[in-house]
Amino acid sequence: MKSMVPKKPLVGIIMGSSSDSKVMHSAAQILDDFGILHDDQIVSAHRTPTKLEEYAKYAEKNGLKVIIAGAGGSAHLPGMIAAHTVIPVVGVPIMVYNDKSEKKSERFKFSAFGGMDSLLSIVEMPNGSPVATVGINKAANAGLYALKILGSEYPEIRIKLKKFKERQHQAVISESNEMKKTGLVKFVQKKFR
Amino acid sequence: MKSMVPKKPLVGIIMGSSSDSKVMHSAAQILDDFGILHDDQIVSAHRTPTKLEEYAKYAEKNGLKVIIAGAGGSAHLPGMIAAHTVIPVVGVPIMVYNDKSEKKSERFKFSAFGGMDSLLSIVEMPNGSPVATVGINKAANAGLYALKILGSEYPEIRIKLKKFKERQHQAVISESNEMKKTGLVKFVQKKFR
Amino acid sequence: MKSMVPKKPLVGIIMGSSSDSKVMHSAAQILDDFGILHDDQIVSAHRTPTKLEEYAKYAEKNGLKVIIAGAGGSAHLPGMIAAHTVIPVVGVPIMVYNDKSEKKSERFKFSAFGGMDSLLSIVEMPNGSPVATVGINKAANAGLYALKILGSEYPEIRIKLKKFKERQHQAVISESNEMKKTGLVKFVQKKFR
Amino acid sequence: MKSMVPKKPLVGIIMGSSSDSKVMHSAAQILDDFGILHDDQIVSAHRTPTKLEEYAKYAEKNGLKVIIAGAGGSAHLPGMIAAHTVIPVVGVPIMVYNDKSEKKSERFKFSAFGGMDSLLSIVEMPNGSPVATVGINKAANAGLYALKILGSEYPEIRIKLKKFKERQHQAVISESNEMKKTGLVKFVQKKFR
Amino acid sequence: MKSMVPKKPLVGIIMGSSSDSKVMHSAAQILDDFGILHDDQIVSAHRTPTKLEEYAKYAEKNGLKVIIAGAGGSAHLPGMIAAHTVIPVVGVPIMVYNDKSEKKSERFKFSAFGGMDSLLSIVEMPNGSPVATVGINKAANAGLYALKILGSEYPEIRIKLKKFKERQHQAVISESNEMKKTGLVKFVQKKFR
Amino acid sequence: MKSMVPKKPLVGIIMGSSSDSKVMHSAAQILDDFGILHDDQIVSAHRTPTKLEEYAKYAEKNGLKVIIAGAGGSAHLPGMIAAHTVIPVVGVPIMVYNDKSEKKSERFKFSAFGGMDSLLSIVEMPNGSPVATVGINKAANAGLYALKILGSEYPEIRIKLKKFKERQHQAVISESNEMKKTGLVKFVQKKFR
Amino acid sequence: MKSMVPKKPLVGIIMGSSSDSKVMHSAAQILDDFGILHDDQIVSAHRTPTKLEEYAKYAEKNGLKVIIAGAGGSAHLPGMIAAHTVIPVVGVPIMVYNDKSEKKSERFKFSAFGGMDSLLSIVEMPNGSPVATVGINKAANAGLYALKILGSEYPEIRIKLKKFKERQHQAVISESNEMKKTGLVKFVQKKFR
Amino acid sequence: MKSMVPKKPLVGIIMGSSSDSKVMHSAAQILDDFGILHDDQIVSAHRTPTKLEEYAKYAEKNGLKVIIAGAGGSAHLPGMIAAHTVIPVVGVPIMVYNDKSEKKSERFKFSAFGGMDSLLSIVEMPNGSPVATVGINKAANAGLYALKILGSEYPEIRIKLKKFKERQHQAVISESNEMKKTGLVKFVQKKFR
Repeated sequence: MKSMVPKKPLVGIIMGSSSDSKVMHSAAQILDDFGILHDDQIVSAHRTPTKLEEYAKYAEKNGLKVIIAGAGGSAHLPGMIAAHTVIPVVGVPIMVYNDKSEKKSERFKFSAFGGMDSLLSIVEMPNGSPVATVGINKAANAGLYALKILGSEYPEIRIKLKKFKERQHQAVISESNEMKKTGLVKFVQKKFR
Repeated sequence: MKSMVPKKPLVGIIMGSSSDSKVMHSAAQILDDFGILHDDQIVSAHRTPTKLEEYAKYAEKNGLKVIIAGAGGSAHLPGMIAAHTVIPVVGVPIMVYNDKSEKKSERFKFSAFGGMDSLLSIVEMPNGSPVATVGINKAANAGLYALKILGSEYPEIRIKLKKFKERQHQAVISESNEMKKTGLVKFVQKKFR
Repeated sequence: MKSMVPKKPLVGIIMGSSSDSKVMHSAAQILDDFGILHDDQIVSAHRTPTKLEEYAKYAEKNGLKVIIAGAGGSAHLPGMIAAHTVIPVVGVPIMVYNDKSEKKSERFKFSAFGGMDSLLSIVEMPNGSPVATVGINKAANAGLYALKILGSEYPEIRIKLKKFKERQHQAVISESNEMKKTGLVKFVQKKFR
Repeated sequence: MKSMVPKKPLVGIIMGSSSDSKVMHSAAQILDDFGILHDDQIVSAHRTPTKLEEYAKYAEKNGLKVIIAGAGGSAHLPGMIAAHTVIPVVGVPIMVYNDKSEKKSERFKFSAFGGMDSLLSIVEMPNGSPVATVGINKAANAGLYALKILGSEYPEIRIKLKKFKERQHQAVISESNEMKKTGLVKFVQKKFR
Repeated sequence: MKSMVPKKPLVGIIMGSSSDSKVMHSAAQILDDFGILHDDQIVSAHRTPTKLEEYAKYAEKNGLKVIIAGAGGSAHLPGMIAAHTVIPVVGVPIMVYNDKSEKKSERFKFSAFGGMDSLLSIVEMPNGSPVATVGINKAANAGLYALKILGSEYPEIRIKLKKFKERQHQAVISESNEMKKTGLVKFVQKKFR
Repeated sequence: MKSMVPKKPLVGIIMGSSSDSKVMHSAAQILDDFGILHDDQIVSAHRTPTKLEEYAKYAEKNGLKVIIAGAGGSAHLPGMIAAHTVIPVVGVPIMVYNDKSEKKSERFKFSAFGGMDSLLSIVEMPNGSPVATVGINKAANAGLYALKILGSEYPEIRIKLKKFKERQHQAVISESNEMKKTGLVKFVQKKFR
Repeated sequence: MKSMVPKKPLVGIIMGSSSDSKVMHSAAQILDDFGILHDDQIVSAHRTPTKLEEYAKYAEKNGLKVIIAGAGGSAHLPGMIAAHTVIPVVGVPIMVYNDKSEKKSERFKFSAFGGMDSLLSIVEMPNGSPVATVGINKAANAGLYALKILGSEYPEIRIKLKKFKERQHQAVISESNEMKKTGLVKFVQKKFR
Repeated sequence: MKSMVPKKPLVGIIMGSSSDSKVMHSAAQILDDFGILHDDQIVSAHRTPTKLEEYAKYAEKNGLKVIIAGAGGSAHLPGMIAAHTVIPVVGVPIMVYNDKSEKKSERFKFSAFGGMDSLLSIVEMPNGSPVATVGINKAANAGLYALKILGSEYPEIRIKLKKFKERQHQAVISESNEMKKTGLVKFVQKKFR
């Protein structure tokens, strides 16, 4: 069957800093798995505020249909992008731990609130300017949600999503059968020790 | 210009109990304002678990393109609907205060966590089963987000969204001009006292 | 004395994913210690929602008298099982840290809320659908609570529970006597350094 | 059909102070609805610590099969009762607001943490001494859970619990049909305005 | 003594919506008390994002020396202004309760997190883009802080700040003497009953 | 029996502002009930920092044996007094709601954190400078704790404390007997409706 | 000068489990440094509830003047001891991390709430039964506070406390002088790298 | 161009203990980068309360124009300095983790609240005594904010701040271009694996 999905980026993936890529790459990975092209950029609300407005215009002009925006700390990026465009924005609150950083001075630079600050900053947008938010560091879910949005227009994506669900289902059934057979105590000894 | 938007419900609005309707009606209102039909039902994950599965099948079969699901307390509805369908689900965490209830015994029935329990239960879905979440009681934003999703397939909705944004913009500018002219102290005296 | 406890599983232990087994095995262990048979399975509310309903029917038909259900993150499993059955459900909120995972990409997959999200999602069930909840990662306590429930019908379990309490008591008395004799500073040097 | 349930109290309901009765009466009500007798007392862990031990002995001697214990603030009652008995204890965290108290000096006496302090104090029992906990102020759920525990020994209670679930189900279906017919905006206008 | 302070606005007061003026007017009041002119506007990060950039340019060109920015909910305004200018920004997290609103539908529109969401969104700016933040709804303190900043350049403001401190000091001493004389129980009866 | 307790203030009660007296008077009341003299003052860490040091010197010179210090918001008073003296300080975190204030502008001036900010600021003193803290707004408990400290030196206070405990005990027993007799549902109807 | 302090234990140090000794030994250490004898025991509110009552009687009979009680998790020990005695109790909330435990199964047994659960359970005692609480894991401060209480009766302890304060003061001054001289950047390089 | 900035310390950097220097040195570093002299000291509110008052007098007399004050735990230092001076104070909440401390006994000495206690203690100052606060451990931002304050009086600092912003901007653009070219998945593999 010939694909009806355009061979150009349909999803924009942006993040507030390069270190966020450690979390955000999971969104890219799932889109790659589904064969959907995406455009990946760093857009900092605070360090590149003018690029932010340009990005929004670029997104609409170039036909992006969903924007996935990840940010940590005060996390203004997803909301500010949503302020500039009518394309749906999926927000990813990010919490990056640096507790094994080589440089000792880096060790204090992680988020002190377990990502709660980013979650609230992204999700609590005022009425009129929605950002739909997924769980903290759940970039893969943001990718899947973008696919769900695209699925409405491109039925072949919906079919793939159902196969994805079915594989998830089978993987659980298979592990559950193993646990039922060996019993829980032996299961955990075999798997994790 | 003749509208290309089908004259049948494109959005499903569901909620866990009838009291949630006090919050959820704002989602219906904004869809009404945009002329988008919607199907409204109560689906309780805990009191009607079998209806939940039927609803998911009904939704896909009847061509719903977005499901808006609101729930309070442990708030399992949005996630459980997402488990049964590949249609994008927008979750609305709900906190209803009953502090003026006629019946004294009702007064203790509100959420003790300011909606935080519902927010986390909806947003922290495991990887593989995303629910995109808006702010607590922000049902109007859920309606707008549904419109953003539909806007990709129906350009006329996108055009209306841009006009909506423009009206928001003008309303702020107008109030700001008034404040700049009268000064803040007089502005608040005039408006709120 | 001949045991009156049936030689078939009386307790069902379920969990949302195989990684939860690292916590849940303590429930199995305590039941093993008391000689109570149990049935162990993985049931994912989000990845295997249809299995969930089947499990509930199976549980009642096969004579399970208590279900212990552990889940992390948004943790819908215990509440959804309770929605489908009148068998008492004991919920275990789970927080799994992966901070020493071999694969770097795994390191961000832990719960950002210290298990609070799971606790609230399990405990804050609406009136009409109770789940009784134990502390975060306290699977052993869930096992003991199942034994307390069974103890009402099978007095021999109650007798064993009293012996268990007595052994706990003696262990504390013995350590306390050692501490009183050596003094606290030497006690901690001897025990922990 | 002749009832096999003994005509004596099977459930003990205790609470830390008389003001907790404003919440705890819902547990008594549901037991009354099911025709199950219960013994109601005030037992304060801090003001009547010796009565606490006596109560535990009384409970076992008189054949109580479940103890429902409600407490607010530091909420030591459920855990301390569980320390003295092998009967299953269902804990109810209580948050009482006094914001309409006649006496002005009373107005500051409510719980500052929205019941979170009580929830954690009850649920986070150490391994070895479980208390199964329901949601904050969810005394009705504690009553239902006691019925679920009794249902294993007395099948007639289980049958009543299934009828209770069926009535819940029907009530939702009926309200949902009304909402689907009138639409959400009119539904909320009719119900709540 | 002739004042050296310029007779033009030195402080910009902005806020995200007109309802924030109920809190922000205290900042204007204290500046009025000190005779410092200020420019008051509404700038919404989400509804008027382009005005935001213009405001920043206007601020620098017109010689504003401090910007006080108040916002509630996700509260992006202070941080986004700071992204566009090198003028020091003082952020005010805002929590507005509407629990006595005339219109019932308004009652659910308050911040669910007690202002914590706004505080964290404003204070947790990434390194490189500081916003200095005062307490929730503490707009008067933002005004005083602006005066402290101006005090370095204009010694007459510093002198007034010292007199302000001295009056605060005297007011406390006077009340304390009254309390010491009457005793605490009588003091509170006289003052608050 | 002639009292050995000196007829001069043994306890100092201080608070950060006159509005705190609405909470702190309970500490004075309980000392009055026990016949213990106390010295009551307002000492603001931020508005009267120099008085704070003088107060500490005065306290030691005049023979105060315990200082009860109440404060709200950032609540520096108890810790700063403890920094200046070796007399034991009992800290009372204060949360004052003004939600029924006559003046509308006052309504936003309450603590946004339910007293948590004050509790942590008082209790989390660094090692070397302890403040012993009671619950939020629990000024009566601070008074009782002061009596417990004095009881070690003055046995007659200890005797009174035991009588106080006995009265508490009897009051609970009496209410419990009433509840046991009438049953919980009727008890709450009689007491609270 | 001959000491007037009795040569017998004046302070009781108790804790809920032997692992708490890793934190509590700091209280013993500071008492040792001041030459004050203490009695150290393990008293578990949940595993040894009857010992708890005996300990309270023993404490009064044997002349203990302060009891320091440390506990983690639901932390009922300090409050329950206070329920049984009029001796002042100093509570220490304990959070023990086991993240480097040899046995993998131990790694999940730490407190999920960063000690907040223990803090609230200890500090939020109902009016009538005070426990004075120090910061989480601040056992050394509990020891110092016991010394402050004893200092009222034994002036020689007060003198030693003043010397302790003076040594603290000098240590800071000395480090500060070093920092002022080398500058902060070099100071931290020298000290911590 | 000859600099108009005085060749003497314009900024005071103080902190509550020497361990805070691990965080605070970033403030010194950024001032060094801009060529602004600063005076660095340790001032403990609790261990050196009298030095605190002297420091405030010294600061005004010697012409400091901004004071940066960092503190952890109950964090009284910034607020107490602000109580003694009209110079603007920038507060830095500090959270120091010691989880890799050589000495095992040190491991429990970190802040239990992720710095939240310090943030609230610093930011929630009562009206009348403002401290402007930056994010937890964001000492570099405190340094930048001091430069923003100085920039109003010394235009050459403002010029440098604009160049600093421009460099930040360029660094993001350059990384973003790399990401856009290689794609996100490869970008993260190259950078972080």
